[in-house]
Formats: sequence, structure tokens, C-alpha cells
Amino acid sequence: MHKTYSLRNARVPTQSQLQNPPPPPATTKGKFFGGKGGLAFNFRKNYAGAMGPQLARKLAQLVKIEKNVLRAMEIASMERRQAAQQLSLWGLENDDDVSDITDKLGVLIYEMSELDDQFIDRYDQYRLTLKSIRDIENSIQGSRDRKEKIDDKIAYLKYKDPNNIQKIEILEQELVRAEAESLVAEAQLSNITRSKMKAAFSYQFDSMIEHSEKVALIAGYGKALLELLDDSPVTPGETRPAYDGYEASKQIIIDAEHALNEWTLDTAQVRPNLSIREYQEETDSSDEDLDNRRINNQTVQENEWIDDEDDDSRIIEQDDDDQEVQNVANNIEQSL
Amino acid sequence: MHKTYSLRNARVPTQSQLQNPPPPPATTKGKFFGGKGGLAFNFRKNYAGAMGPQLARKLAQLVKIEKNVLRAMEIASMERRQAAQQLSLWGLENDDDVSDITDKLGVLIYEMSELDDQFIDRYDQYRLTLKSIRDIENSIQGSRDRKEKIDDKIAYLKYKDPNNIQKIEILEQELVRAEAESLVAEAQLSNITRSKMKAAFSYQFDSMIEHSEKVALIAGYGKALLELLDDSPVTPGETRPAYDGYEASKQIIIDAEHALNEWTLDTAQVRPNLSIREYQEETDSSDEDLDNRRINNQTVQENEWIDDEDDDSRIIEQDDDDQEVQNVANNIEQSL
Repeated sequence: MHKTYSLRNARVPTQSQLQNPPPPPATTKGKFFGGKGGLAFNFRKNYAGAMGPQLARKLAQLVKIEKNVLRAMEIASMERRQAAQQLSLWGLENDDDVSDITDKLGVLIYEMSELDDQFIDRYDQYRLTLKSIRDIENSIQGSRDRKEKIDDKIAYLKYKDPNNIQKIEILEQELVRAEAESLVAEAQLSNITRSKMKAAFSYQFDSMIEHSEKVALIAGYGKALLELLDDSPVTPGETRPAYDGYEASKQIIIDAEHALNEWTLDTAQVRPNLSIREYQEETDSSDEDLDNRRINNQTVQENEWIDDEDDDSRIIEQDDDDQEVQNVANNIEQSL
Repeated sequence: MHKTYSLRNARVPTQSQLQNPPPPPATTKGKFFGGKGGLAFNFRKNYAGAMGPQLARKLAQLVKIEKNVLRAMEIASMERRQAAQQLSLWGLENDDDVSDITDKLGVLIYEMSELDDQFIDRYDQYRLTLKSIRDIENSIQGSRDRKEKIDDKIAYLKYKDPNNIQKIEILEQELVRAEAESLVAEAQLSNITRSKMKAAFSYQFDSMIEHSEKVALIAGYGKALLELLDDSPVTPGETRPAYDGYEASKQIIIDAEHALNEWTLDTAQVRPNLSIREYQEETDSSDEDLDNRRINNQTVQENEWIDDEDDDSRIIEQDDDDQEVQNVANNIEQSL
């Protein structure tokens, strides 16, 4: 039942996808040289983790694919920056109003690509955290292998030379030690995988929220800029009234800059609307000035969002967990 | 004064940029093979419009750069889809809770890359509208050249053979006709540039708003999913309590799907905050339940946003303007 919403099964199109036919696919899609991201992209993806231990192979591949994502986003952001400059250059040859507005649109689009850049830097932090899970997986493979090897040795000796009790005893003591080590290793893996995964995705989602809300803000100011463009048709020979929007367009850019500087994660406007019982029960309705839709079940989330803001520090703090598990490991080994 | 906020001048860092030092730049940035987007990207950019008429050269380049943007975004979206699948695959080998949550996170990230794809298709519509401005610029160069040529011919004749009044007269009549044609052409250029530019960017900004608000929504649901992950550390040998979040995680995906289906441009949460006087004067405060910040100056914008939604049809309707200018052109030519 819960597998209906899974990536591991096929997806059926939704009603809304059937009702609203999408725009035609982009004419540039996959038709040209370099369509699949090129040699480097494929090489990275296909040979990732191929030489490493089995346990870390899948995650090593994921880390490499995320690097491809980063590279592609980076190129997109770079090209978008150039597009902004070219737009401004093109406008320069046109009338005053087109010139001013394209220049200001260029400023906004340039700002978007700066945001893309910031997002890329943060996405890389997420990737590096995944990488540290991969490293743990790598190192734990060793302890699993060692235990297995001793197991095999004992079985072999018991079959081949069952009277050599002394040697079997030594090996069995070794096995107990290996099992203790393995127990600790598995606990470390379980703890670190979970905490790092939570930190990595929390961080990624926070930066996504920041990036996309800021882009939406800029797009809104862009639309305000377009309102300044006088697009009423003129008849041949008629001159267009002189453009007087310099102050207004500049003010829009200042407003946009101000809004971007003011933005924080707690003032984020887009909020998920959860229908799970647990969240609803905990609701307190102290903040009366929230939207109706948010009062239902969002108030609880509010605090969580603010907490999540300092993920940066959390990524670093998780090393304490390592320490803790290490202490337990020492205790066990002393008691044996 | 108004040039302070221009792409054509250098920008100084803002106070907030100085105060909040950014995270370290992504380690993948520009260090590897294919860093600049590759051969095809550069070729497209550098030779765009090089053979076409002078007037359309800048815009032809912009159109090509936008194609590069599209290509890069497409690769990013494709890679992100693979990352989602790989994440789900990696989770499969882990414990129940990690397995379920990575799978569901994969579904959300896959959905984001589907949104990217939709956005790419729409971005291409914007690019095609720019292309049609370029085509007008291309075709108008001809009428400018013709007028100049006749001008030159008359000047040459007047100097070389000033007594050949008959021929000069014919040429001068030709010049009048060429001037009329040029007048119409310039009016066409002015009208079409403005209306198409407005339509193209309006459409682009609308799809940006849709794309980024939806991504922010999904990221919010992703954070809710992460809450289901039990990251309290276990000691070695201790077993983690059984995972019972299947229903909750499925519900989150259903909620996310529902929220995405419900989203429309009029329910967009992120709104620009304009401080321009004109907008403030027109404000009517009939909608009392809006946020305080929005009451100031956003109510007027409200209607505009809804109007802008059918930009698709506007892009097509603009051909009527062409028709109008054409009629005027006919009238002028008949009257001469």
C-alpha cells in the first residue's frame, strides 16, 4: 500500500496532468551536440565507486551524480549572467524606455544568477555531508569483512582439524572481539547515517526554500518593472511620449534589493499544509494574525523551522555522536 | 543618478554581503573538464548573428545565450532526476526507516526535476518570443538600407550630373516612398519590440514564480518528511524501535501532490513590496484579511497578476498589432 508513492515503482499521470496539456517541449531539448552533459558527466557517473567497497558503492554514485547536478547548475548560472549582460547591451541601442527597462531587468536577472551561485555553494555543502556518510560506509566494510573472515577460519579448522582445540579457542576469542567491534561499527553507521542524512537534507531544503522564495520575489519585481514599459502602439510618424520612469525603475531595484536583504527563513511565505493528525493535535492558536490556511496545522511547524536555521553548526556538531559511540565501544572492550 | 543601479556600471558589495560572509565556494566550481559548458556552448555564443544584419546582432546573441541557459538547465534537471533515483536505490539497502524516507525524498526530488522540465519548456517560449523580435529587427534593416542607398544615389547624381533633373526627380519620388516605408517600419519595430518584450518577460516571470513557489512548497514537505527520521543515537547492541511512519510519509507525499495541484498564480504567497507612490495612491482597502505588509500597496497589483496569467494568448494576439500598423502603412502609401 505505502509503495504506491515510491520511486521504485512506475508512476501514473495525475488527473491535472491529463486535463491541462503542457506547453510544447522546449525546441532545444536533447537535439544537439553535448545533449547528455558530455563525456566527463558520463564518466563520473558510470565509474563512481566501482573500485570501492560494495557497501559504499551506491552512495558513491549518488555523490558523483550530485556533482554533475552542481556542474550543470553552475553552467546555467554562468550563462544566465551573460544573458543578463547581453539583454542590457541590446537595450542600449533601443529607445530610452526600452534601454532603461532592459538594463534594470538585466540587474534583476543578474541578481538571480548570483542567488543561483549561492545556492550552488550550499548544495555543495549537502553533497559534502553525503560524502562523509559514504566515508563511514567505506570504513565499516572493513570490520564486517574481518568478522566474516574469522568465522570462515573457525568453520574451516573445525572441519579440517577438530582436535586443535587451542587454536580454535584463540580464534573464538578473536571472533568475540570482532563481534564487539562490529556491533559498535553498526551502531556508528546507523547513528551517523541518520544524523548526517537529516542534517544534509535539512540544509539542502532550507537553501532551496531561500533560493526559490528569493527568485520568486525578484520575478515579482521584474513584473513591476515591465509595467513601466509603454507598449501602446504608435502610428507611423507619431513620436512616443518621453520616458519618465527612471526614478520608478530605480526605486523598484532598490525595493528588490531591500526585500532580498530582509528575507529570512522565518519570514518565508510558502508553507506546506500538512494533514497528519500528530501535527494537528499539537496546534496552539496563539498567533491570530496568521492566514486561515496556516492556522490549521502550521503553527507547530513554525518553531521547527526556526530551529533548523542553524544547520550549519549542526553538521559540525554531529561529530560528538561519533565520540559518544566511541566511548561505549571502549566500555565494551574493557568489560570483555 | 539612475545609472547607479545598472548592469553597465560596476556594482559595490552590499552591507549584508559584507556582514554575512557566504559559505565557501562549491568545490566543484570551474575546476574540471568541460567547465565552461564545452565547445558547443562557446561556438553558439561567439558566432551568433555574426553573419546577419547589424541591427539584429545583439539580440541574436542573446537568443543563443538563452539557448545555452536552456541546455544547461536541462542537463541539471536530468541529473537531478537520476540523483533522486539513486537516493532511493541507496536507501533500499538501509533500515526500514531510512529506506522509506529516502524513497519518499526521492519522489519529492523527482517531482522537482519534473517542475524544472516544465519550467524549461516555458523558458523556451520566452526565448521564441525574443526570437520573433530578432526577426523583425532583421527584416527592418532592409528598409533602412534601401532609403540610405537612394539618398546616396541622389547625392552622387547631384554632384556628377546636376542637369539630369528628370532622373533626380524620379529618385526623389522613390526616396519619398522609401521614407514612408521606413516610417512604417520604425513604428512596427517600436510597437512589436515593446509588446513582445513585455509578453516574453511577463511569461518568463510568471513561470519563474510558479516554478520557485512550487519548489519551495516541495522543500517544505521534504522537511516534514525528515521529521519522521529517528536520529536519536543508539548504543551498540541496542535495536532501534520499529519504524511506523509509512502512513505518515505517504500522507506527506499526498499532501505535497495536492498542494502542487492546487497552486495557481493568484494564490502565490511571495509578493513584491513596492514603495512607489503611484501604486500607493490607487490602493483600495477592501480586502481586510490580507497581511499588513501587503495592505500597503499590493492590492492594486492583485488584479494585474490575475490578468497576466493568460500571457500565452497574449503572445499570439500581438500579431494584431502588426496588422494595424500594416493598415496605416497602406493608407499612407495611398495618399502619396
